[in-house]
Formats: sequence, structure tokens, C-alpha cells
Amino acid sequence: MDRSNQHKVKPYLMTRSLLPENQETPIQFIKGDIMDNKLFYRRNHFHYPTLSYSNYRLPINGMVSKSIMLSLQDILQLPSKTIRVVLECSGNKRSLFEPKVFGEQWDKGAISQGYWKGVQLSTLLELSGIGEGAKEIVVEGYDFGERKDLNRVFSYARSLPIEKALHPDTIIAYEYNHQPIPFKHGYPLRLIVPQWYAMASIKWVKQINVIDSNFTGPFQTIDYVYYPNKENNNDAFPVTTINVNSTIQKPLDKEILNTGKDVIKGIAWTGKGFIRKLEVSVDGGITWLNTKLEPTKNTGYGWQYWSYEWTISKKGEYKIMSKATDSYGRTQPKIPFWNKKGYGYNAIDKINVKVE
Amino acid sequence: MDRSNQHKVKPYLMTRSLLPENQETPIQFIKGDIMDNKLFYRRNHFHYPTLSYSNYRLPINGMVSKSIMLSLQDILQLPSKTIRVVLECSGNKRSLFEPKVFGEQWDKGAISQGYWKGVQLSTLLELSGIGEGAKEIVVEGYDFGERKDLNRVFSYARSLPIEKALHPDTIIAYEYNHQPIPFKHGYPLRLIVPQWYAMASIKWVKQINVIDSNFTGPFQTIDYVYYPNKENNNDAFPVTTINVNSTIQKPLDKEILNTGKDVIKGIAWTGKGFIRKLEVSVDGGITWLNTKLEPTKNTGYGWQYWSYEWTISKKGEYKIMSKATDSYGRTQPKIPFWNKKGYGYNAIDKINVKVE
Repeated sequence: MDRSNQHKVKPYLMTRSLLPENQETPIQFIKGDIMDNKLFYRRNHFHYPTLSYSNYRLPINGMVSKSIMLSLQDILQLPSKTIRVVLECSGNKRSLFEPKVFGEQWDKGAISQGYWKGVQLSTLLELSGIGEGAKEIVVEGYDFGERKDLNRVFSYARSLPIEKALHPDTIIAYEYNHQPIPFKHGYPLRLIVPQWYAMASIKWVKQINVIDSNFTGPFQTIDYVYYPNKENNNDAFPVTTINVNSTIQKPLDKEILNTGKDVIKGIAWTGKGFIRKLEVSVDGGITWLNTKLEPTKNTGYGWQYWSYEWTISKKGEYKIMSKATDSYGRTQPKIPFWNKKGYGYNAIDKINVKVE
Repeated sequence: MDRSNQHKVKPYLMTRSLLPENQETPIQFIKGDIMDNKLFYRRNHFHYPTLSYSNYRLPINGMVSKSIMLSLQDILQLPSKTIRVVLECSGNKRSLFEPKVFGEQWDKGAISQGYWKGVQLSTLLELSGIGEGAKEIVVEGYDFGERKDLNRVFSYARSLPIEKALHPDTIIAYEYNHQPIPFKHGYPLRLIVPQWYAMASIKWVKQINVIDSNFTGPFQTIDYVYYPNKENNNDAFPVTTINVNSTIQKPLDKEILNTGKDVIKGIAWTGKGFIRKLEVSVDGGITWLNTKLEPTKNTGYGWQYWSYEWTISKKGEYKIMSKATDSYGRTQPKIPFWNKKGYGYNAIDKINVKVE
């Protein structure tokens, strides 16, 4: 027997915590436009919920013309669309803030992309009708648990302003990469809100509620809020749109290279428009070089691969940086926008390598 | 169908690189004295080797009374012993050095423990006899590849001084945790050198060679050498015995806790004697408290679990530290011994938590 063929070499999720399960993607090893479920980062607030699928119904209530209750069968029969979407945890790259912030120490892999298929949320809201004076759509998940800071049990729930809820690409999804959504990612139904950080894309959708006020759940008023000051909560504002960002996938930070030809490559993404330019620097930001954006048929709300052919002629240490600019002219800052809870990190990405 | 029971939550290896495969254990989630193969860290210098097992033979050559060639069957029939051993990569915790060093950025999980069963290397050397003037025993693995720095292909091979080779607990192992050694960890035979960093415990043993000189292979004269100066190679000395060390497993670094009772726990290990004392500090090293060392029947060369019941009465930020002392009086230093290639990190372990 030759067992030497049995040694597949593959990356795994990187475990941050198990209860709740928070594991991140080894983003440096990801390629292609479909991410394997096994490498899709997992971000939870609570234990996994228990759902009964046999009599699953989705209620739409509140300020509606008529309350309705949809079966999965009902939803599958409605017109659908499929969109390529980046889901990025707003805490992605949190570990890079200086000074350090507390909370899950995500490195660069709390991000995914894939194809989500579902029905437009606006289609569902047309069925129920939206009452006059309606202001926000609250979506609640089946996941719940105690918040020790408030000493009370909460479901995971958040609202969207009407305009965002009615955006044609805000969908209630039932497929991920042409398969039923994996349980850990929200089976049977997940709200997908392209261009917003992924705390908005609620898993295991339990109900939809139309309200005429501003929703004040803790996952909107306490968490997922930018607090720019360490000592107080002044100037706070909510986390919504994904910042323009990029990540170097290759080489690895602190990698030892040799002289000759090498390739620097990575991904870039934004929550507004599309990536227009990706520059790299191999001299710590003194000079910037344009990279090749990989042509894609339909990037949609996905990320953009980029690469740069680097000819290394001299030994020594190099600081490599990547800087994305989107079609709205937003560009990655040199210094991250520090905030107490560590959301939305998007400073110019950087790594160090040594050439021997 | 209720799919909610299908969501097992488990930790995975953390991927550092894939070619060669270097993946580390999420050490904060490990308990018990047997480590699952799936979570055993993987550290390679080259691609995995291809071996033919059907006619596997182990040759013992060089300055011996007579060259011999042993089949696996021969080896399995010799007297055996089983020992509990910590294998720690000498680069474990490399990422913690300041200033940063280049190379694989291991966090705290390039360490394992388990039960290794095999035959004493001294028993094999008795069969061949050791010639007069013999000085070192060279063990070569089946793994090989190009070293770009030397522009040549090398096998992974290292030597042991005769005394260490003849130590009664230096074995040629064929079982790990009562099973044949997993391929990635050295099947069919692995040299196990307790108390030394794991670069000495050569996988996929190909041959044993007795020599009368000092072996000068690059994995002994270039790598696995402490270089204390950044600018030159003065005062270099080889990496051998494991330093006294400890790792906090719980809480996690940057975790947010609540007031009340909590447990601080972790592991401690040493390459000399046994762990005599483990102290923790919750005030950044001002005061030190003795912890409970978990009683074990037979620690052998394994690690020692420890725990401390912490009653948190006040909100705020805390710096938690752990400091091990072994039976030889060796203790973890406050400042790590910096060396250019980043080996043997064993400074007092520390994490920060916030109590809300």
C-alpha cells in the first residue's frame, strides 16, 4: 500500500471562538469566484438556533396592508435573481487596529463571496403592502441568547431603512452557490444586503416586521456603531456601507523570498460602485505602481482580483502595500479610522518580506 | 428534516502555508493528554515524500561493527516502550518576537503532545554495534527538496551526539496514540527525541548513519541555530533543549468578560526535569499568584495543565500573565531572548482582557 497519495494539503478555517462559533477564512489561499462552504467564515452572536423546517413559515407583519405568512414553496415560486456578493464582517481586520481594541481578533479573513439566489425583499413587501408612514423594515433571525450587558435575552434582529429594503438587489436568499444555503450560513432563508457590512445580512430569517419608527435593538444601537472616542460615546454613527478595501494574498507577511520574478496579488472590494484602481508599493509607500485588475465578466458586488509582476533584483527587506480606489473616488487611508469597537478597518494593506 | 443537529462546532488547524504544509494547532481549545491527529500541528520543510512501504527497510550504516538493514517486522519484534512527549517546533511563538523576525509566523500552537511507542534507538545501535571513535548519529528522512540559499537539493537530516542518541527515551517510534503514526507525522518510522525541540524528531526515517565527526548539514549549521545578533552570525549556538514555557489557553487575548467568577487556565512544559510551579498575574506582573497544577498520573515528557480561579470584582482592563518554573529552577524570562531566526521564544505569556 502506498499511503503517500493520501496526504491532501488544504487550508482550514481559523478558529477564533467556539461558543458562539467564530471562525475565519484563510483568505490568502482563496481564489476563484465561488468560495467553498467549508472555507466560508462563520460569525455568530449566539448558539446555533433550532428550527423546525417541516412547517416553516415566514410572517410579514406590522404596518402592512395585510399580514401574510409565506411557505418556502410560496417563496420559491416567486421571480428570483442571483447576485454575486461580498459579505464582509464589519470586524474584519480588527486585530490590526492600534491601539488594540477588544472583541473577536479577526485577521483579514472575515470576508467571503459567492452567488446568492433569492427573491427581492421588495417583491415580498408588495405582497403584504407597505402601510403609510412605514419607516423601517425589521428582520429577525431565529438565533437568540442572553446579552450579559443588558441582562436580557434578545433575538438577533436589525432594521433597514425602507429605501435600502426596496433596493432591487436586497433579497431574501434561499440558495448559495446553486445549493440550498448551508445551515451555518442561514438555511432556509437569509436576508442578503449587498454593499453593507454583513451584520445586516440576517441568517435564519424568522419574521419581517414593518415599523413606523427607528428600531432600537442592541445590535443596532449598542453594537455595529462607530464610536470614535475611547472615553465616551460622542459622535457615534451606525455601521452600514462597506469601505473601499484590499488585501494582499501573496506573498505572506514575513515571508522569505529569493531574487528574481515574483507575483504580488490579492483582492479589492468596495461597498460603493466598483474598484477602479489598485496600486501597490514595494518601497513602503514612496512610489506606487498600477496593477492589473483581473478581467471578470460580471463582478457584481463581488471582489476584484489583482496582480503585479515584481522583479526583485536586490536582497533586503521590503514593505509591500496595496491601495484600492473605487469609482466614487474613495481610497484606502494611510491611517485607519480608529473606533472603540473596531469596525470598518480599511487602511492601506501592508506586509513585510525579506529577500535573501 | 431537522438539519439543526448537523452543526458540529469544532476547531481546525490554522494554515500558515501549504507548500510546504505548515499548519498550527488552535492551542487554546486543546484539553486532555491525547491530541487528535487532526489538530496535531504540521511542520514541513519540503513536499511530502513518496515512500514505498511494501519493501521498506531501515539501514544502519557508517562506523558500525556491521551494517544492518531492518524490516518493519524486525523492528516491531524488538522490546518497545511508550512515552508521553511534547513535540514543540522551535519556531513556536515566533510571531511574538519584537522586533519581528522573518519566517513562518507561528502563534502559540506549534506544539503537540501524545503517546509515542517504539524501540529505543540504543537497541537498534546495539544490533549494528557502534564503532570506536563514533561521535554522532545522523538520521535522515525521506523528505527532500531544493534549498534556494544553497542552490542544491538536500534531504532533511540531522545528527544527535552519541549520549543523546543512547538516552533510554530516544526512540524510533512506529505508533502515535496507539495507532500507526499518521503519514503526515512520519509513517512508518519517526525518531522521537524527548526534551529537544521537534526539529530533532525526524519523520519518515530513511536511514541511520554513525559518523566520527560533527555533522554539517544545513538543518543544523544554518537553520536551528540561535543567532543573537541581527547584523552578523557571531555567538551562534545550536537549538537543542526545550525552554521552560507556558501558554494561557483561557481567557482568549482581547476577550471581553463580565464580573464574577472566571477561570484562567493553560499549559506549562519544559525540556529539563518537570514543572514545579506556575504563577499567574492579573495585574500585569505586579503580584504573582500560585496556580493549581492539575495532578497527572504520568506526565512523562508531556505538558502540565494548570488553572486559577479568578474572582473579578471590578470592571476595567486586565493584563493576565503566566510564568512557569521547572525543577531545575529555570523560569520564563520577562523579555524573550531575541535571535535572528526566531527560535525558542519562552517569555512570560501574556494576554489582555476587558471586563465590562
